[in-house]
Amino acid sequence: MSGVIVTGPPKADREHVEAIARFGVATVHEAMGRTGLLGTRLRPIQQDTRVAGTAVTVLCRPGDNLMIHAAVEQCGEGDILVVAATSPSTDGMFGELFATALKRRGVRGLVIDAGVRDTAELRAMGFPVWAAAVSAQGTVKATPGSVNVPVVIGGRVVRPGDVILADDDGVVVVPRERARRAAEASEAREKKEAAARAAFLEGRLGLDRYGLRDTLTRLGVTWQPYDAHASSCDAAERDGAGS
Amino acid sequence: MSGVIVTGPPKADREHVEAIARFGVATVHEAMGRTGLLGTRLRPIQQDTRVAGTAVTVLCRPGDNLMIHAAVEQCGEGDILVVAATSPSTDGMFGELFATALKRRGVRGLVIDAGVRDTAELRAMGFPVWAAAVSAQGTVKATPGSVNVPVVIGGRVVRPGDVILADDDGVVVVPRERARRAAEASEAREKKEAAARAAFLEGRLGLDRYGLRDTLTRLGVTWQPYDAHASSCDAAERDGAGS
Amino acid sequence: MSGVIVTGPPKADREHVEAIARFGVATVHEAMGRTGLLGTRLRPIQQDTRVAGTAVTVLCRPGDNLMIHAAVEQCGEGDILVVAATSPSTDGMFGELFATALKRRGVRGLVIDAGVRDTAELRAMGFPVWAAAVSAQGTVKATPGSVNVPVVIGGRVVRPGDVILADDDGVVVVPRERARRAAEASEAREKKEAAARAAFLEGRLGLDRYGLRDTLTRLGVTWQPYDAHASSCDAAERDGAGS
Amino acid sequence: MSGVIVTGPPKADREHVEAIARFGVATVHEAMGRTGLLGTRLRPIQQDTRVAGTAVTVLCRPGDNLMIHAAVEQCGEGDILVVAATSPSTDGMFGELFATALKRRGVRGLVIDAGVRDTAELRAMGFPVWAAAVSAQGTVKATPGSVNVPVVIGGRVVRPGDVILADDDGVVVVPRERARRAAEASEAREKKEAAARAAFLEGRLGLDRYGLRDTLTRLGVTWQPYDAHASSCDAAERDGAGS
Amino acid sequence: MSGVIVTGPPKADREHVEAIARFGVATVHEAMGRTGLLGTRLRPIQQDTRVAGTAVTVLCRPGDNLMIHAAVEQCGEGDILVVAATSPSTDGMFGELFATALKRRGVRGLVIDAGVRDTAELRAMGFPVWAAAVSAQGTVKATPGSVNVPVVIGGRVVRPGDVILADDDGVVVVPRERARRAAEASEAREKKEAAARAAFLEGRLGLDRYGLRDTLTRLGVTWQPYDAHASSCDAAERDGAGS
Amino acid sequence: MSGVIVTGPPKADREHVEAIARFGVATVHEAMGRTGLLGTRLRPIQQDTRVAGTAVTVLCRPGDNLMIHAAVEQCGEGDILVVAATSPSTDGMFGELFATALKRRGVRGLVIDAGVRDTAELRAMGFPVWAAAVSAQGTVKATPGSVNVPVVIGGRVVRPGDVILADDDGVVVVPRERARRAAEASEAREKKEAAARAAFLEGRLGLDRYGLRDTLTRLGVTWQPYDAHASSCDAAERDGAGS
Repeated sequence: MSGVIVTGPPKADREHVEAIARFGVATVHEAMGRTGLLGTRLRPIQQDTRVAGTAVTVLCRPGDNLMIHAAVEQCGEGDILVVAATSPSTDGMFGELFATALKRRGVRGLVIDAGVRDTAELRAMGFPVWAAAVSAQGTVKATPGSVNVPVVIGGRVVRPGDVILADDDGVVVVPRERARRAAEASEAREKKEAAARAAFLEGRLGLDRYGLRDTLTRLGVTWQPYDAHASSCDAAERDGAGS
Repeated sequence: MSGVIVTGPPKADREHVEAIARFGVATVHEAMGRTGLLGTRLRPIQQDTRVAGTAVTVLCRPGDNLMIHAAVEQCGEGDILVVAATSPSTDGMFGELFATALKRRGVRGLVIDAGVRDTAELRAMGFPVWAAAVSAQGTVKATPGSVNVPVVIGGRVVRPGDVILADDDGVVVVPRERARRAAEASEAREKKEAAARAAFLEGRLGLDRYGLRDTLTRLGVTWQPYDAHASSCDAAERDGAGS
Repeated sequence: MSGVIVTGPPKADREHVEAIARFGVATVHEAMGRTGLLGTRLRPIQQDTRVAGTAVTVLCRPGDNLMIHAAVEQCGEGDILVVAATSPSTDGMFGELFATALKRRGVRGLVIDAGVRDTAELRAMGFPVWAAAVSAQGTVKATPGSVNVPVVIGGRVVRPGDVILADDDGVVVVPRERARRAAEASEAREKKEAAARAAFLEGRLGLDRYGLRDTLTRLGVTWQPYDAHASSCDAAERDGAGS
Repeated sequence: MSGVIVTGPPKADREHVEAIARFGVATVHEAMGRTGLLGTRLRPIQQDTRVAGTAVTVLCRPGDNLMIHAAVEQCGEGDILVVAATSPSTDGMFGELFATALKRRGVRGLVIDAGVRDTAELRAMGFPVWAAAVSAQGTVKATPGSVNVPVVIGGRVVRPGDVILADDDGVVVVPRERARRAAEASEAREKKEAAARAAFLEGRLGLDRYGLRDTLTRLGVTWQPYDAHASSCDAAERDGAGS
Repeated sequence: MSGVIVTGPPKADREHVEAIARFGVATVHEAMGRTGLLGTRLRPIQQDTRVAGTAVTVLCRPGDNLMIHAAVEQCGEGDILVVAATSPSTDGMFGELFATALKRRGVRGLVIDAGVRDTAELRAMGFPVWAAAVSAQGTVKATPGSVNVPVVIGGRVVRPGDVILADDDGVVVVPRERARRAAEASEAREKKEAAARAAFLEGRLGLDRYGLRDTLTRLGVTWQPYDAHASSCDAAERDGAGS
Repeated sequence: MSGVIVTGPPKADREHVEAIARFGVATVHEAMGRTGLLGTRLRPIQQDTRVAGTAVTVLCRPGDNLMIHAAVEQCGEGDILVVAATSPSTDGMFGELFATALKRRGVRGLVIDAGVRDTAELRAMGFPVWAAAVSAQGTVKATPGSVNVPVVIGGRVVRPGDVILADDDGVVVVPRERARRAAEASEAREKKEAAARAAFLEGRLGLDRYGLRDTLTRLGVTWQPYDAHASSCDAAERDGAGS
């Protein structure tokens, strides 16, 4: 039940991280076959910000931020701190002082499955945060945990060195071995979306572009004018009532 | 279990929609006798935006946006797309590509009892959205549903052609047959509120303006100076303790 | 089951309220020994606003704002209205008309463990609100309650005249008798934090500054290079599998 | 905003109600094309009980049970009382005294989208209840509502006289006009299920019985031995890492 | 931020506790003017059990049960252990070993605003529990807290020595000074309810017994035969549509 | 985005599974260093049942049980079916027909992070289930997923062949390689608990047995008689007020 601070984990290539940073969370999630999203519980405390980096992971007990102190030392240029808790907690485990220390080390942001505080100050200093809660509730430094071990947030495993991409839609993790392919697939998807966007701007329909009329017909969906539909509903009720 | 796409439903008169658009959600909800609110689950992804339009309704299965594609074709100038799901879902069924297609058709916004994604892009393009969740989670196009049938959101029935009014306080539905009366009643209410506002600015009290002192007295509420109240509480405790 | 409107409660000294207003919620909460936070349910409807004042408390039944009308008369310069409900409720018990009346009396804001409406208008008029919900749902004026009795929000007792401090991180209550000491302790804490901030900006670590390396060692936490850790995990799995 | 007590609504035929009562909620819901379920919020306070009857509907304000008193008079042999609230509420609006009055009138149970109390007594007297909450919290009799108007629970409309069927899986509503067909379709479905059950008892697979192997193949799902799958995953990681 | 273990607090008289134990939670809550309920979050892990005793209170940090150990020593014959946490937590802070120690000391049960484990064993040994969660999640013994200080659960203050009454409907606290009066008022209420029960068994209506017909009329509620109501609704829609 | 059905995964030794089955979930969780619990969302639909087996894992899309059909074929004697969904869902993906097929194959139970139906029938046939929801809501068979790949439930990874242990307190997963050691450690822990139980039955205190008095003192916790504590609180308030 004690813990370990793992040093020097492998990290995704910087080049691939920057490539991924050019896309939105939804695009990368789709490009990876709809995987990697850290659920809907994490929300940004700022708006219109996107950030990508390599994960330094922390596993804390609820209401105890001792291991975040241990993690700061493991953080460097281009990292994103990723904090999970062994039990659900909304306590404010992270605030402006931590962000000051991390920013100086080149850390790009925080993803925390618990609470954060000093949110106005964090926005003012430009340190982006995705958190499960905002709470001023203070924490202790009394129980052990781990740094740079795999953690689970929102049903997904995040390992140290994996790529984290976060924007207004949420947070996605890209396993470090798949970073290049995720960047490539995202680029391909964005091209496809650009073509669709152009078509939609000209008035084309997804129904036609994606061949969905056939799908609808195969599934038994029919088109009915309002009046015909309304009277068939009435008839059904009458028949039913008369039965 | 299949579905139907109803075409050409009746719609509330444009003139009444525009009349309703001049009021806030709270005012119209009050003017209609405190009915029509679509609950508290739907939240705007933008701030300080109000929009009104006629509903094009969609009923999807959770995690499946096939029927939104079918609905786009049924949407036109002045409509608002209203999406319900057969089971609770937070998946991101709607994003910027849909908004591009809808905006070109003159659609004014989206109300969705499920998730939305590309929220930064949606704000940037000025397409307002009220949603139950923000999530990048992708969806499939595999199961049937319906368009322009009555749907239920937040305990209220929305029929195609009904008026939808949405602002920072939430979303309200006005049955298409009641649109004119809702607009008139809202205007009357707003006049009443303007008079109250003026009175309050002059320092009058709601207690007096609405005759609530009598209500309070009838209900047995009393005014007590702090010290008298405190000592009567102490006495009660003492008596209790001594009993 | 009826109620009482207590008049003329003692209030924290204005001077101490203003002193407390210079600090954030997290700082004051910490300075008071991590007490007084009104939980995580109350969220601001505006961003980057901090306010402090003396509490005028209201206890309402769910969906009934009669007692807020009674409370307005008890409010004055420098107060903050604090509304609790006897059962959980999200109904919009408070809106712009109330804010108009309160603002004229010099009231600084609202803390309400229920719903609020007219949020765009409230932001526009600069009347700050912390609420458990945003909802246009209207309420009645039919059942009794109390004004200026102790109420409980988020597990903390708020008495009339206590200091309320609210910002983006939430709301904290300071018992009126402890206002001076809370201000002093907050100042001391802020000085300590300023020193830590300066140290962190120079690259020092919390691990060293707070002597946490010893704590970690005492708790059995160890530092391990990634490769050594990975192979020991593999060995454990192999041993386990071979057992 | 006042209300109406509708007397003498049409009701589903007793014979069809009894026919429906022979099936479980899941069966009838399926037989009606997967419609009519009143969501997952309503839970039984007892176990292993199934009941069917005709709805007497009530719309109350939160924390106010006045209209339940009005509804008792409208209830008779074979009815089930169905209570909805205009806003979410967990207050205990119904208890043993109401059940005593209703039982004497031949009412078969209660479905309430709010709280219930005296649960031990209700179980002891054999009056089955499906509720959104258990709470001893008392209510008032101060505000108007309606009886025997359509209400919405869990996103479904319940009209007076509709058939309500409830068991351990939840509650389903059958529109009164569709009662006979729902009973017939349920019987057909139960026969189909009995055949499937017999086949499964003999060791047949749903994969074969429902022809799902083809579906899986069409959707691109493949069968892979564990070792082959594991080594292909390893290869993918290696390739990825080497990229 | 440290804590205190208060010894020898005053307790409600045993005689009054036993008197209160004769009534259900709903009855006592009503008899005290609808106060004292500890919300809806606490649920019993057993069915059909009622227990009353004097509170020994504990305030723990989330995920830390050190102070429960300290509290055991303060518990004696006729007490009920009441555990609150400084932040929300579902961890299993209490299990069968604690119950063994408490039962030997004559403690009657547990009320805990956090998690409990060993629930099968607790039921088997007849130690009743009301808890906010069931979870096997283990806890630590690392941080200080307090015993026999006032705690808040579900928005109500529980002081050491207050009477706790718990049954299937939830938990109610009776301040120790009001114990006698609560018992007397409960007895009076039960008599009133017995009379109502007898009347209802004879077929009388609450409408008549409580004079509610006048209330309904005063509030503008009307009685309408179904057909008249249906056609007036139709007319309203027609008029509206024609407007 | 398609899927794979992995056949023939390694499984924990039957002998170790049976050894683990002798202990409760809390004991095994503790013996493994407080790891492996599948959160608090999964609840049993029956009471006083414990079961252990080897996991056959399924990953479904929400509202689609196609892959459960595929999984049945992979299930055999001593297995437990473990179903996860790619997005949160409460739909009733599993019912009595599936249980019939699984029971015939020797499967011991179901753990599902989604909904289940036919709960009365499942209890009657003795097929134990731990589920996130009870719902009769029907599902489709339209989208691909996987069988016997690692899935995440409640923040823990479950791999095919891992040991699943479930009882009234929840569900714990033991990695297949650690099964023997988990059984041994559980036995050791149970012995320790038996000794503690015996001591507590003789009236010893955890405070003494675990040496916690020193811990309390080190943490600054003090023992104070009620009267002394009460008067020091009063003094603090007075001093504060006088400040």
